[in-house]
Amino acid sequence: MKAARFYDRQDIRIEDIPEPELLPGTVGIDVAWCGICGTDLHEYLEGPIFVPPKGHPHPISGEEAPVTLGHEFSGTVNALGDGVTDLHVGQKVVVEPYIIRDDVEVGPGKEYQLSKDMNFIGLGGRGGGLAEKIVVERRWVHPIADDVALDEAALIEPLSVAHHAFVRSGAASGQTALVGGAGPIGLLTAAILKAEGLTVYISELSEKRKQMARDAGVADEVFDPRDGDVAEAVRARTDDEGTDVAFECSSVPAVLDTLIDAVRPGGTVVNVSIWGHKPEVDMPKLVLKEIDLRGTIGYANDHRATIELVESGKLDLAPFITARIPLDDLVTGGFQQLIENNESHVKILVDPHA
Amino acid sequence: MKAARFYDRQDIRIEDIPEPELLPGTVGIDVAWCGICGTDLHEYLEGPIFVPPKGHPHPISGEEAPVTLGHEFSGTVNALGDGVTDLHVGQKVVVEPYIIRDDVEVGPGKEYQLSKDMNFIGLGGRGGGLAEKIVVERRWVHPIADDVALDEAALIEPLSVAHHAFVRSGAASGQTALVGGAGPIGLLTAAILKAEGLTVYISELSEKRKQMARDAGVADEVFDPRDGDVAEAVRARTDDEGTDVAFECSSVPAVLDTLIDAVRPGGTVVNVSIWGHKPEVDMPKLVLKEIDLRGTIGYANDHRATIELVESGKLDLAPFITARIPLDDLVTGGFQQLIENNESHVKILVDPHA
Repeated sequence: MKAARFYDRQDIRIEDIPEPELLPGTVGIDVAWCGICGTDLHEYLEGPIFVPPKGHPHPISGEEAPVTLGHEFSGTVNALGDGVTDLHVGQKVVVEPYIIRDDVEVGPGKEYQLSKDMNFIGLGGRGGGLAEKIVVERRWVHPIADDVALDEAALIEPLSVAHHAFVRSGAASGQTALVGGAGPIGLLTAAILKAEGLTVYISELSEKRKQMARDAGVADEVFDPRDGDVAEAVRARTDDEGTDVAFECSSVPAVLDTLIDAVRPGGTVVNVSIWGHKPEVDMPKLVLKEIDLRGTIGYANDHRATIELVESGKLDLAPFITARIPLDDLVTGGFQQLIENNESHVKILVDPHA
Repeated sequence: MKAARFYDRQDIRIEDIPEPELLPGTVGIDVAWCGICGTDLHEYLEGPIFVPPKGHPHPISGEEAPVTLGHEFSGTVNALGDGVTDLHVGQKVVVEPYIIRDDVEVGPGKEYQLSKDMNFIGLGGRGGGLAEKIVVERRWVHPIADDVALDEAALIEPLSVAHHAFVRSGAASGQTALVGGAGPIGLLTAAILKAEGLTVYISELSEKRKQMARDAGVADEVFDPRDGDVAEAVRARTDDEGTDVAFECSSVPAVLDTLIDAVRPGGTVVNVSIWGHKPEVDMPKLVLKEIDLRGTIGYANDHRATIELVESGKLDLAPFITARIPLDDLVTGGFQQLIENNESHVKILVDPHA
């Protein structure tokens, strides 16, 4: 079967590899669509980061580069391993792409995303969504309703990241939120917040991204920091208090400053972005306002709620699909496109069969 | 009466001023002892910070420099204003020294410490503990048991700061904590944590402060970062996990790094210290470990619980009193002593009548 394999930085190859083996307790899946994630782009430009380099096998998967890429994918069940009786062939599914030790408990209240040596399918081994087929442990397979389109379903993985950030914030319906940055994760975070009943403000510089946020209907108002102090604007709309929560989705220190300024005293700032360095944090303000600054990584028990938001129609993922490409075009039509026209894209979907 | 008045940076004068007027709803107090706080020292060296400078009256108190200093004090009721019926003359009391708008609600669940323009008695006006007498609104006066010594009671104010930091951490009995820095607030934070039933580790460089922490019995173990990686040492004692909570009490970036490294995944770091700048924060680790970094300021509804810890004998404040001086000696025996022999002192108490 065809698969996109990460060998090294700037060395991703589309190759023909053997189909994965169906083992007891696993589920065989025909991949329908797989999104390209910012993390994949980081691996391509600066990696290996999550990918275990050649000679350094991952302690759980035992695999090292080359590995198959792709962790944002949807598909259809094509085979069930021994003991798997609660799914059926032909069923639409998405995957929660974790590589986690067998003895780590998974389920409500369990913080398995924080377990030692956690990695992701499609980065740390165990196949990936940028291949025609994959075999996944039952516990990571989530069925979705037949009427959910498989292209939109490929966005459920990054949407679960946004849902987890929302859960980490402790925010509730009726509250107010400021999202800093309207890139893919900022837009999906805003979409979750709107679907959960919050008033959502976005701060963003890029004209294209501001327009996308408006078109997707995920913000009550979009602010451009060049037009004036965003924290002031937010306070003017929240009884001079500030928002209850804020979400850092830009990896830009000035945006983090704005969020700490813009949340109300006692408010919470969730950092959703990935930082390549240690930014300066406005600790004097964090102290005087008793702000909680919270990290968030991946998801844990978020897929079910996220899928229900999509199934119920409360959240429409269609506006976030900005291109569809065949697997053979992954590097030029995918990675190069994200590098050269980053602001024009939210999610590029790859068809591994095309 | 005698009072220590802050005129400007490095200009504190012991003066004779009129006694404060007893108004309806207020309590007259003979000050017994008043501690010198790090905040007072900051005002002396770098102020005015909390003190409203001349020409810029505080929006609530209406006062400006010169103001009477001192916010960590104990005393005895000498008069009751009209309408105050639940205290009696001669009763021992401490003061929660807030300047807060009259319409801000005070009581359980109310975050009045975060209210607009909050300031402190003894910094922002309304008299201070570095004077023979003070008159305070009833709501800020907390009675203490007759058998609590008034010198130790002067430490209940900074101990309430430590208690509030503990509450902010969400920690519970049986958990583990690392305190970064064994200055006055680090030691009092450790004392609260021990009294609340946590296992407490301290990281500290100063030989004198390490010894004080050991002598006061507030730590299960005291680490010196020069002897090896403190985070490693803590993990070795916590099933390779890290502590549940950590408290930044040093304003040193390397200590903040150590705490973020030393808490367990999902753990909480409370910043108790005051920063004069914006430190770099290890956001990559904060994200991957889903750490909560929480600010804490002052106290809110902490005095009652703090007083009970002292009244019950669970927490002994005597070891933290390192000098007693008369008011006339405030600058040389107090501020200069704290500058020149900082590591030898936890709390210097001032007798305003001597």
